[in-house]
Amino acid sequence: AIVGATGVVGRTFLKVLEERDFPFENLYAFASAKSAGQKVTCKNKEIIVEELTEDVFNRDIDIALFSAGNSVSRKFAPIAASKGIIVVDNSSAWRMEEDVPLVVPEVNPQDIKWHKGIIANPNCSTIQAVVALKPLHDHYKIKRIVYSTYQAVSGSGMRGIKDLEEGLKGNDQHLAYPHPIVNNCLPHIDKFMENGYTKEEMKMIFETKKILNAPDIRITATTVRVPVFNCHSESINVEFEK
Amino acid sequence: AIVGATGVVGRTFLKVLEERDFPFENLYAFASAKSAGQKVTCKNKEIIVEELTEDVFNRDIDIALFSAGNSVSRKFAPIAASKGIIVVDNSSAWRMEEDVPLVVPEVNPQDIKWHKGIIANPNCSTIQAVVALKPLHDHYKIKRIVYSTYQAVSGSGMRGIKDLEEGLKGNDQHLAYPHPIVNNCLPHIDKFMENGYTKEEMKMIFETKKILNAPDIRITATTVRVPVFNCHSESINVEFEK
Repeated sequence: AIVGATGVVGRTFLKVLEERDFPFENLYAFASAKSAGQKVTCKNKEIIVEELTEDVFNRDIDIALFSAGNSVSRKFAPIAASKGIIVVDNSSAWRMEEDVPLVVPEVNPQDIKWHKGIIANPNCSTIQAVVALKPLHDHYKIKRIVYSTYQAVSGSGMRGIKDLEEGLKGNDQHLAYPHPIVNNCLPHIDKFMENGYTKEEMKMIFETKKILNAPDIRITATTVRVPVFNCHSESINVEFEK
Repeated sequence: AIVGATGVVGRTFLKVLEERDFPFENLYAFASAKSAGQKVTCKNKEIIVEELTEDVFNRDIDIALFSAGNSVSRKFAPIAASKGIIVVDNSSAWRMEEDVPLVVPEVNPQDIKWHKGIIANPNCSTIQAVVALKPLHDHYKIKRIVYSTYQAVSGSGMRGIKDLEEGLKGNDQHLAYPHPIVNNCLPHIDKFMENGYTKEEMKMIFETKKILNAPDIRITATTVRVPVFNCHSESINVEFEK
């Protein structure tokens, strides 16, 4: 099952399943009531999107890929898991829970072994960073990391893409951002926390420590939205112990 | 005198002289032979741009503001200085010379005292950084700096502005950049050096040390061109001694 099948990430799930010829007998596509009835395709099959309800997890589902936002994951992932379904969750709802593995396949595949029904997927900025950092940490032991990101609007989903598209046409639209993103850089991704960092920055800090299993690395991050559609870049500065 | 009067910075010199009602009896505007004959204005006076030659510095000039690129500064600034003219140079040609003060008025105004005819102005990324860093260094002593920049195309002059303008219209034009700047971030400002850093990055490193008179601060920089016209941003991470 795909939960959040009509979003940017949900559609990408379907595309990747097709590209990898991922084996399945049945594929269910779920989304909000608003999107129910839409059609999506995978491996030349047309699938009608159904409304997500608690009951859908009584079906013959082995794996559910979730990308429908934190509140949906918070509510429905435990219901799915309680039915023996393995949930792979792309939201930030479960990432920092102690009994939920946070996994990047190239970095800590062994952590899926101790899952209890939910496996979390980290923030996009964290994923690409830890792939580079893991072998460096193994060889030189990382003492400190300074992250500065250059993040595309696609990270905000359809609404971010539309804000930039409209901005480029001269329309000052704010579906995703409080300020214009066209001709601008916004050091404001997700919401601001009491400590002055944004939630996106705190995600990078906590998730990196969890995935590398290295709580003592000192990390700071500045996450910035830039007016590009897809290219997601970072400057990563590292100090080693040795 | 303004040397490079028809460029983006030259025009800004004229605008600032006007805004501040800077006192002068005569104002001369110089540029390359190609731009000679153009007209610029300052304080409601129209000035015809003249070709820059060695002879022009025989005139009654007290101060010459240079922004016409490194090779022009390298050749003509010493000629002007030899005639008793104070040269304020915006290029990077003289910044790192031992007997040339590198000055940000808010940070190290005292350094103009030891000039020998040429006073250099730092890189734009360095200027805004040291204004913030100076009081921190005075109070806490800076040990280490990590710079990551988000630099506007105006830093590349008219050609950078035109590349972005044309790119936004769908034209793949490369007057200033080897790759498209629209919908892209380029970690490539000025040229690449043998050590893998760009010259822009090395400028930030060396200039910061010189202006703060702190050769022992450990500095690294990642300088990135982003698709915005004017807004110049930086993420500056600092470790203190205390």
